[in-house]
Amino acid sequence: MKKIRAAIIGAGGYGGCGATELLIGHPNAQIVALFDQQDIGRPISDLYPHLKGFCDLPLLDANDPNRPEDFDVVFFSTPDGVGQIEARHWLSKSSKVIDYSGDFRFNNADTYRGYASRIGKSGEHASPDLLPEAVYGLAELHRKEIAGARVVGNPGCFAVSCILGLAPALKAGLIATDSIICDSKTGVSGAGKKPAPNFHYPARYDAMNAYRISGHQHVYEIERELGLAAGEELKITFTPHVIPLCRGILSTIYGNLKQGQSAESAFEAYRAFYKDEAFVRVFGPGSTITSTDVRGSNFCNISVNADPRTGKLIVVSIIDNLMKGQAGSAVQNMNIMFGLEETSGLLRPGQYP
Amino acid sequence: MKKIRAAIIGAGGYGGCGATELLIGHPNAQIVALFDQQDIGRPISDLYPHLKGFCDLPLLDANDPNRPEDFDVVFFSTPDGVGQIEARHWLSKSSKVIDYSGDFRFNNADTYRGYASRIGKSGEHASPDLLPEAVYGLAELHRKEIAGARVVGNPGCFAVSCILGLAPALKAGLIATDSIICDSKTGVSGAGKKPAPNFHYPARYDAMNAYRISGHQHVYEIERELGLAAGEELKITFTPHVIPLCRGILSTIYGNLKQGQSAESAFEAYRAFYKDEAFVRVFGPGSTITSTDVRGSNFCNISVNADPRTGKLIVVSIIDNLMKGQAGSAVQNMNIMFGLEETSGLLRPGQYP
Amino acid sequence: MKKIRAAIIGAGGYGGCGATELLIGHPNAQIVALFDQQDIGRPISDLYPHLKGFCDLPLLDANDPNRPEDFDVVFFSTPDGVGQIEARHWLSKSSKVIDYSGDFRFNNADTYRGYASRIGKSGEHASPDLLPEAVYGLAELHRKEIAGARVVGNPGCFAVSCILGLAPALKAGLIATDSIICDSKTGVSGAGKKPAPNFHYPARYDAMNAYRISGHQHVYEIERELGLAAGEELKITFTPHVIPLCRGILSTIYGNLKQGQSAESAFEAYRAFYKDEAFVRVFGPGSTITSTDVRGSNFCNISVNADPRTGKLIVVSIIDNLMKGQAGSAVQNMNIMFGLEETSGLLRPGQYP
Amino acid sequence: MKKIRAAIIGAGGYGGCGATELLIGHPNAQIVALFDQQDIGRPISDLYPHLKGFCDLPLLDANDPNRPEDFDVVFFSTPDGVGQIEARHWLSKSSKVIDYSGDFRFNNADTYRGYASRIGKSGEHASPDLLPEAVYGLAELHRKEIAGARVVGNPGCFAVSCILGLAPALKAGLIATDSIICDSKTGVSGAGKKPAPNFHYPARYDAMNAYRISGHQHVYEIERELGLAAGEELKITFTPHVIPLCRGILSTIYGNLKQGQSAESAFEAYRAFYKDEAFVRVFGPGSTITSTDVRGSNFCNISVNADPRTGKLIVVSIIDNLMKGQAGSAVQNMNIMFGLEETSGLLRPGQYP
Repeated sequence: MKKIRAAIIGAGGYGGCGATELLIGHPNAQIVALFDQQDIGRPISDLYPHLKGFCDLPLLDANDPNRPEDFDVVFFSTPDGVGQIEARHWLSKSSKVIDYSGDFRFNNADTYRGYASRIGKSGEHASPDLLPEAVYGLAELHRKEIAGARVVGNPGCFAVSCILGLAPALKAGLIATDSIICDSKTGVSGAGKKPAPNFHYPARYDAMNAYRISGHQHVYEIERELGLAAGEELKITFTPHVIPLCRGILSTIYGNLKQGQSAESAFEAYRAFYKDEAFVRVFGPGSTITSTDVRGSNFCNISVNADPRTGKLIVVSIIDNLMKGQAGSAVQNMNIMFGLEETSGLLRPGQYP
Repeated sequence: MKKIRAAIIGAGGYGGCGATELLIGHPNAQIVALFDQQDIGRPISDLYPHLKGFCDLPLLDANDPNRPEDFDVVFFSTPDGVGQIEARHWLSKSSKVIDYSGDFRFNNADTYRGYASRIGKSGEHASPDLLPEAVYGLAELHRKEIAGARVVGNPGCFAVSCILGLAPALKAGLIATDSIICDSKTGVSGAGKKPAPNFHYPARYDAMNAYRISGHQHVYEIERELGLAAGEELKITFTPHVIPLCRGILSTIYGNLKQGQSAESAFEAYRAFYKDEAFVRVFGPGSTITSTDVRGSNFCNISVNADPRTGKLIVVSIIDNLMKGQAGSAVQNMNIMFGLEETSGLLRPGQYP
Repeated sequence: MKKIRAAIIGAGGYGGCGATELLIGHPNAQIVALFDQQDIGRPISDLYPHLKGFCDLPLLDANDPNRPEDFDVVFFSTPDGVGQIEARHWLSKSSKVIDYSGDFRFNNADTYRGYASRIGKSGEHASPDLLPEAVYGLAELHRKEIAGARVVGNPGCFAVSCILGLAPALKAGLIATDSIICDSKTGVSGAGKKPAPNFHYPARYDAMNAYRISGHQHVYEIERELGLAAGEELKITFTPHVIPLCRGILSTIYGNLKQGQSAESAFEAYRAFYKDEAFVRVFGPGSTITSTDVRGSNFCNISVNADPRTGKLIVVSIIDNLMKGQAGSAVQNMNIMFGLEETSGLLRPGQYP
Repeated sequence: MKKIRAAIIGAGGYGGCGATELLIGHPNAQIVALFDQQDIGRPISDLYPHLKGFCDLPLLDANDPNRPEDFDVVFFSTPDGVGQIEARHWLSKSSKVIDYSGDFRFNNADTYRGYASRIGKSGEHASPDLLPEAVYGLAELHRKEIAGARVVGNPGCFAVSCILGLAPALKAGLIATDSIICDSKTGVSGAGKKPAPNFHYPARYDAMNAYRISGHQHVYEIERELGLAAGEELKITFTPHVIPLCRGILSTIYGNLKQGQSAESAFEAYRAFYKDEAFVRVFGPGSTITSTDVRGSNFCNISVNADPRTGKLIVVSIIDNLMKGQAGSAVQNMNIMFGLEETSGLLRPGQYP
């Protein structure tokens, strides 16, 4: 079978590095071009020396009019605002587009506006006509639409952990929809490759903090997806924290169990919901799950618990933010979009310790 | 003025080390004896080389019948179950007792029983007759009782952060009492000095997890104290997490704001509540507070926020678990019990980075 | 082609975990049994949850007389002293043996004795008759002997980095043999899975130290191998350090350049020496190489430098101690012993960050 | 006694923070002004929240013509090149000057030129006439000159550990002067507060590397000081490494023992050399010293060892790079310059863990 020809835009960042690592080992796809706006001409293995001998493609100038343009799929590992401008061009070249940012996570201009306001962007989407066909790239909930999509908006890292951690409860009506809290902890790699005072080693190695309390933009896609699962609109309280580790998101999720529900009934509902999923593992009450259980892999591990004293459902949901939270989901989406085995190139356990 | 003569039982652990560090620099107190059950005869500075030249007292055998016994205060830096047996003896020697464990955090045998069941102990307290005079050693809430106490139960580290983070809201009636959640993250030093698989560097440096979901024993003292503040019994949902840093507890606390309350009104209530406190700093909505802001010091920093979309009060409360969460509170209690300046020996900013 | 059937003895440790990870993804080999002396009956994925679904074999009792014994290769991921007793039995079952410890790194009882004295063992080898056929499993120097071996002594982690970092200089006669220093820094995973006070997270996260100064046992195999390269006996000064990271050994190696030699001539000699090696990358003067360049992979990266002011050759040699320093070398040796492609199952770049 | 009035220029960096922490607790000195070129007007406790309530002075514009100028001592916590221009002005205002950079570590323009060439500066010192009176601020070797100095060049962090680790051996003639190697490992805080790709948490948490091999500028001051101790010119090989911890420098130092010298004779020589020093602790062969033994304090711990097989003296020298390697030495120098007790404000053990 001919390999899928993939290009990455914004290849120099962690998201590009992650996709490159995965595509190097992918049996049905290959990287044929890497684009960026800096370090032009340098081999990617110069920025990421562990790739030396595995991928030594040079970074091409994303703005060069003579750039190659013959790809089956283009990954936009770029900040908000880039994909929405450039996707149209690549679609016209018959490439499919998978965008890591929020640009294609919403399928109408109105819902996008709320998201955009949270990240200090003008609320106007640059290509509103593309939004109706954009698909939210969380395979476990939108596999069919992804299969037929030309444009996929890869989900936010926090969103993956929260949505997968709550969808079964809402679909099954286990909890009330009016008092859901997602308390999420992320490793530092989620902030990307660019140095910043908060992520300077001496400032971070022994430091944790909450940030953007009640103001993080991922709340919109979480609410949209959970609303779909619940069959009604809902609002959640979401607090992100950054802690001193590299890879991992752990979301601790709280909801009020409805009458008659328990940890056990919830556990069964979660198991049933995910029984055919390759990348979701469900654990019962009393299990301890740790971020390293999924580090370096595309899995989401979920433990289902309850506090019978207070009637709370307590779900812990963990992912590797650079894998299931980013490049792993992107490759999973690519597999689905091109009719490949969904797990192709992704069945790796990670490494420990 | 004659210096308070202090002894530490269980001096070889982190809690003993912390008290030793503080008493070394204390103008009105001095360590005169260190007891433990292992490393007998070794100078404490052999176990903790940073103390060399500052405190080189040998560890004395806690069980030696000829041990010295002439102290003004005895710190029990020991696991649950030790202080409740031995405190009586020291009280008979006219020593005051400050116990780090849960042994004297409850002032009747019934409430102690619930706590004890959580930690796998028989529920029967060894000295129930002492419980009525035991005082919960959280100075900000019990200063007066501490001043008159012979026996103080130093509060649990998680409890300090949660109680200080919630007491003003409950006292002022800002939030409902039926849906409070404390999501706490602790550094590894909270687990003490003893190596364990979960705290082995390779297993922990990049790993986070929740544990004892709905089952941690600190919930009892939190509920008792918050119930006193609220004027009614209440239950909370409490989830501890361990994350890869050394010192610090950050508790993210959620409650349902009552009609008419807001981040601003809550901030004012917190400021008013703590306006005379030396060791509590209150920050308003939008502030970012980080665990290193209090690392190495006896402060509790609290930021008061709300999510107006969901009506939640969101309080972030941070302490150094080995200071305000342990040895710092112990010395603060000692100061109060002996009529010293409450801040004596404790006004240090910590070090950064 | 029929897959090589592999068993691991001591499978519950980090060395067993590493071999399991590699064999899971190996196209020509498979794990068919895992043995240990504890956690008997528990699936390996219970100890290492990241393996769940990839390898769920139970740990078998290594001492069970009815254990399976039909393997092509047996990996001893065990401490010194185990393989030398048990290897004979497995050889009699037609298994080849790859031992991680020092038991088969020396091919006569005399040289073994010096090594053994360093680790507090009696100097007498349990199977001295097997030593003459034991091969030192550093493929870059002993590929041919490994290909014909029944018993391979996998090299020590420090030794791999030091030997690969010095062999070309000694083979080419670039440096004097009488003043070689290897200053090595290792991550904590090299100490294995067992918790210990020195590796407890709070004691280690911000702590570095030298240890066994002038007394580490790896010095023997380093001197033996370098003596072979130099064509004369030599002694080296070797100082290991442990520093707060998980994976990686970085050895900084010093030697006195002979008249007429320079960084450039040394660089050429190293490039020539390793030109056909799949797992050694050589970098010239001025390059910065970082332990993460090889983390998670079987590579040894070497940078060749000199200080013209003092006439010193300064070589930096980095490996992942759990890969090229342990399980990676073991699988590389297996590949050679069974006539497979030497890189089979090992061509992975690792992950970053 | 009237307190020394101190100002800090470049107060916003880690060096300024360290001096501020120390002066807050100093019985005989006080900070009266903080200057910087950014964050003007913000209280220092805004940049370093742990200082809140201890020092809330605003950062003043270092270039403001109306700045206050009435200080007993001015600390230049600034990069190379600042102090050499501005010191003259402050001296004219009768302030003494302590400069953290290399600007006043050399007392003639020629030796400065070699240093400057290493850091990419033009070799011409801006105030060569001040150099003859500049004193190298390593109290253990230059106490008397410091006492009489108006201008002190605070020593480089690596230099402190290497010089203190070697001076006794050279003074006593224990080792040859022609083959000395200093292999130094530093924590990340040594690189200062400014974020950079190499110190970004995800890039650093599990990464170590050597850098500026044979090219680090501290080599000049080390060679000058050791040459003075030895009574002859000498050259050393110096390799710095950066490793993932915050505070600490550990230098492993190698020299060829002269005939008749041993670990024991060396240990005695070191003990004798430092017997009256408050801030140097000497440990004998077989001791393990760890960077945390001196973290947060002004001590230098030194262990003296030898490898009898190779005739090497092996000294391990550890400091806290921000204390004895920077702010601690600066305050020690201030104490000496003003006739205070040398240990004033510096006798703290640090905190553990």
